[in-house]
Amino acid sequence: MDIAVLGTGSAGRTIAARLAELGHHVTIGTRDPEETAAREDFGEWAPSAPDVTLGTFEDAAAAAELIFLVTNGGAALDVLDLAGAGNVAGKVLVDVSNPLDFSRGFPPTLFVKDEDSLAERVQRAHPDARVVKSLSTMNASVMVRPADLGESTSVFVSGNDADAKAAVSALLESFGHDDVIDLGDITTARGAEMYLPLWLRLMGGLGTASFNIKVVR
Amino acid sequence: MDIAVLGTGSAGRTIAARLAELGHHVTIGTRDPEETAAREDFGEWAPSAPDVTLGTFEDAAAAAELIFLVTNGGAALDVLDLAGAGNVAGKVLVDVSNPLDFSRGFPPTLFVKDEDSLAERVQRAHPDARVVKSLSTMNASVMVRPADLGESTSVFVSGNDADAKAAVSALLESFGHDDVIDLGDITTARGAEMYLPLWLRLMGGLGTASFNIKVVR
Repeated sequence: MDIAVLGTGSAGRTIAARLAELGHHVTIGTRDPEETAAREDFGEWAPSAPDVTLGTFEDAAAAAELIFLVTNGGAALDVLDLAGAGNVAGKVLVDVSNPLDFSRGFPPTLFVKDEDSLAERVQRAHPDARVVKSLSTMNASVMVRPADLGESTSVFVSGNDADAKAAVSALLESFGHDDVIDLGDITTARGAEMYLPLWLRLMGGLGTASFNIKVVR
Repeated sequence: MDIAVLGTGSAGRTIAARLAELGHHVTIGTRDPEETAAREDFGEWAPSAPDVTLGTFEDAAAAAELIFLVTNGGAALDVLDLAGAGNVAGKVLVDVSNPLDFSRGFPPTLFVKDEDSLAERVQRAHPDARVVKSLSTMNASVMVRPADLGESTSVFVSGNDADAKAAVSALLESFGHDDVIDLGDITTARGAEMYLPLWLRLMGGLGTASFNIKVVR
């Protein structure tokens, strides 16, 4: 599948590399490809994923059938503007971002919550996109290789489009996820996003980000 | 141990009965014991837990070494006022309440979150109480009989007093919990309380409240 990953941070790179490893044709989108290519962290990573292409947000989104949004939450809507509404319309848009606000230090607070969510803002800004919130409840390495935890854990999908959720669930299963829980429509992303404050305290209490929750029922 | 359970709803009754079964001397505290005793739900339940006494919030708290706060979140501070600051001071106070606001319908929102929590409000209102947030992340029957899920799951403690957290952890273990995770000081209760919106969507998605999360690491 032709897939765009919007975001060049650790999570975006990890997802892009895993998708390429699984045989997808992946373009990482960024604001300024030359600047990104020259960045030390990106330059060190790039040789490990030689099949992943780097392009502008617009080029990446235009060529893609499915788009991962993996920017920091505060930039999500701007990045989609740069990608171009027409390049997003009709496509499955996997929103992996979290609405974290670091302006008051660590742990961050959430800049949208409770009666709205970042996923809903994305869906409202791009009503023709088929937004699915997923994967935002875990560390990047756990997102793409959950089996490394040695035990089944859970991942959530929220969205208004059943076919889009099915397509994302299939991708998640190809990553190794064997417990994909459909929380419901896009408003249920409020639940997934509001879990982050607990995730942050768990990371502090456990001293590691290599964990995930399993919903035992 | 002499234990007070403040709250006569399903969760309070479930915790009280389990504590009595484990050999503790339990008093359920309520605003008006006569009125509570005459209530249909309470009257039907009471014969199943004959060793549990019913008293005022004040009498229950005065006699207790350890207090469970299991009211609805909106009533928590009022209930502690009725219990009396002097009857709470110095004692382990297990805050099981959730700051749910049903004024806009279902699912509820949270009336405090992100930069504060109900547990912190309780601790500020009763600076000499040894507040431990716990158990609020699951259904009442799972709280007291987690082993019924057939698999180990996790329960959290947040609080400023290490001895109080140890005492609560021992009680939790007597309920059957075998993975008590210390999240840190009382501010970490923000994480546990903000998990509720996800819990509510999971209940919706799974069609049951008989579940809990296991932190796999």
